[in-house]
Amino acid sequence: MFTLITTHGRARRGTFSCAHGGTVQTPVFMNVGTQAAIKGGLSAHDLKGIGCQIELSNTYHLHLRPGDDVVRAMGGLHKFMDWDGPILTDSGGFQVFSLSSLRKIREEGVYFASHLDGRKIFMGPEESMRIQSNLGSDIAMAFDECVENPATHDYAKQSCERTLRWLERCKAEHDRLVALPDAVNPGQLLFGINQGATFADLRVWHMKEIAKIDCDGYAIGGLAVGEPTEVMYEIIDAVEPHMPQEKPRYLMGVGTPSNIIEGVARGVDFFDCVMPARNARHGKLFTWSGTLNLKNEKYKTDPLPIDPECDCPVCRSFSRSYLRHLFKAEEVLALRLAVMHNLYFYNKLMEKIRNALDEGTFESFRARYSGRLEERI
Amino acid sequence: MFTLITTHGRARRGTFSCAHGGTVQTPVFMNVGTQAAIKGGLSAHDLKGIGCQIELSNTYHLHLRPGDDVVRAMGGLHKFMDWDGPILTDSGGFQVFSLSSLRKIREEGVYFASHLDGRKIFMGPEESMRIQSNLGSDIAMAFDECVENPATHDYAKQSCERTLRWLERCKAEHDRLVALPDAVNPGQLLFGINQGATFADLRVWHMKEIAKIDCDGYAIGGLAVGEPTEVMYEIIDAVEPHMPQEKPRYLMGVGTPSNIIEGVARGVDFFDCVMPARNARHGKLFTWSGTLNLKNEKYKTDPLPIDPECDCPVCRSFSRSYLRHLFKAEEVLALRLAVMHNLYFYNKLMEKIRNALDEGTFESFRARYSGRLEERI
Repeated sequence: MFTLITTHGRARRGTFSCAHGGTVQTPVFMNVGTQAAIKGGLSAHDLKGIGCQIELSNTYHLHLRPGDDVVRAMGGLHKFMDWDGPILTDSGGFQVFSLSSLRKIREEGVYFASHLDGRKIFMGPEESMRIQSNLGSDIAMAFDECVENPATHDYAKQSCERTLRWLERCKAEHDRLVALPDAVNPGQLLFGINQGATFADLRVWHMKEIAKIDCDGYAIGGLAVGEPTEVMYEIIDAVEPHMPQEKPRYLMGVGTPSNIIEGVARGVDFFDCVMPARNARHGKLFTWSGTLNLKNEKYKTDPLPIDPECDCPVCRSFSRSYLRHLFKAEEVLALRLAVMHNLYFYNKLMEKIRNALDEGTFESFRARYSGRLEERI
Repeated sequence: MFTLITTHGRARRGTFSCAHGGTVQTPVFMNVGTQAAIKGGLSAHDLKGIGCQIELSNTYHLHLRPGDDVVRAMGGLHKFMDWDGPILTDSGGFQVFSLSSLRKIREEGVYFASHLDGRKIFMGPEESMRIQSNLGSDIAMAFDECVENPATHDYAKQSCERTLRWLERCKAEHDRLVALPDAVNPGQLLFGINQGATFADLRVWHMKEIAKIDCDGYAIGGLAVGEPTEVMYEIIDAVEPHMPQEKPRYLMGVGTPSNIIEGVARGVDFFDCVMPARNARHGKLFTWSGTLNLKNEKYKTDPLPIDPECDCPVCRSFSRSYLRHLFKAEEVLALRLAVMHNLYFYNKLMEKIRNALDEGTFESFRARYSGRLEERI
């Protein structure tokens, strides 16, 4: 289901397929629909028009609301949100550690209070697998602890040893669940997650260990959570040589356009990030010349589209002047159009990266854009 | 530009055309895009998919923000919001009286303070015509005073005499503006507005007087502002016989589905109302069996669409369960899908009314639905 077509240095050009959708071209950016909806009012149908190949939803959020039992009763996430392409669900681990309160981490899992209503909840490897099984996603992520930075070496070691034991339990439970006759998605895959905070020795040890467990892909988790960008790149550099070549690699929650270009250069295939949608909701738009803020007075009578180089559904139809007006008038349409543009930009970025890999021009593409796309124009 | 095809009693089936779009089939509901955007995040493109024939925007709002000078600089409303169908702009009168503060009504016009920033503004007949000329709408509405109910007969008489004088000034200024070589929309039409509060004698006198001024259509304004529904119907009954047969009639700001059916039965051709979009944003949806509130617990695992009889883009794809989840999770997508459904319902209501008129079955349609479509299911 993952095929490596070509490599340039460590950068990889491949294809991926799973139980839903056709062939995914990698490197790929996964578009985030946390609560089974894209922020800003985009439906799954809108994703088709902006080049989205994989949608990502959040286990923690959907477990709390509407409940994974509800999603299962409705036939799974694909039917619920009317998206027939691939869906990846995260494990809930990251949100348990970033959103909930009153956490107690034990060998069996994590006790925590819902950020919505304070309700006490337990989630361990088996629970996470069962929730993701109910959701019926195509890729389930292993339940892990995402250690806060800075962490001590001792704590990080203890944590990633536990995350390894949790992966073994995830794998066993996942194998059991997909074999059940009433599995929502019997073709569901499982990706393991590398942890180890910012300690290269722990990261490498952990990566070697999880590579021994037969997962369908491997992610690097716990990065882009406050550490300097250079540290993130160093960790990827350290871990990547120990990731199985024949399986897809996913850098979780990353990142800026330049982070993605640098991730690809370091051998990563899958990315996801809330940044393009979040920035869009604040009027901050990506263009091929840098970023702009649509709320700026100077766009009041600007007849140009957000990016004259862009052929997204928004840039084909609307001016900066109109979009600025929508933001100023607090029309919900402002959010939708801005999110559409930024997600299209990210999906187009991946397409340009893939084309550069196909044509053997990735290094010049990297030199032209890496570190540049975030500059304000 | 208005052709009466057939009548059934006072009900009229016709066609209408103006400077933009093809032939509009009447009776017609105009979909409201107050600030050049449909509430809930619909773009003008979405209007195509829900059967919208005419879009309506608000002069008062657009004058304040982004400014009609900005819209003119961007080539007019059609280009600004990327809608190539007919656009009607109201005169600003209703909002001056309902939204602004510190109003002083004089013979020359109205002095008022913006509801956005308190800025002092003057608007009279000439200003309203110039603003609507800048917006480039296909139908401009005359500047009128919308008297608050209850009003004294004396005040209502004084007011509708002034509104008549204002219409004469509107007509003169409108004639001048459309003849200018740089008119944004040289094909812009002008509709006069009947006023007179709830006094049938004033309404009839005023209607006869404004009918003498050669307008392209006539509206009944100042209704559905708090008076009992029966009073509204009585006023329409009184005024309608004095409205020119060969010109379109527009009942402003009305109303519920039943109000529209009753308006058609009384000879009205054009309607507009914010209700379908506003109700939708609160989870209140129209169906052919009555209204339902999507936030209701009973829809938690309901796999049916909002209305099994409906073939709108929302009902074709999403369950009540999914929509309820989106409302509960406060996803913007909830608003958009709900607004799409309700506007589609209103446009479909008009289509069904037209079909009933074409087939000579309007009275049985009216008997079946009037007074029923607002019942809660």
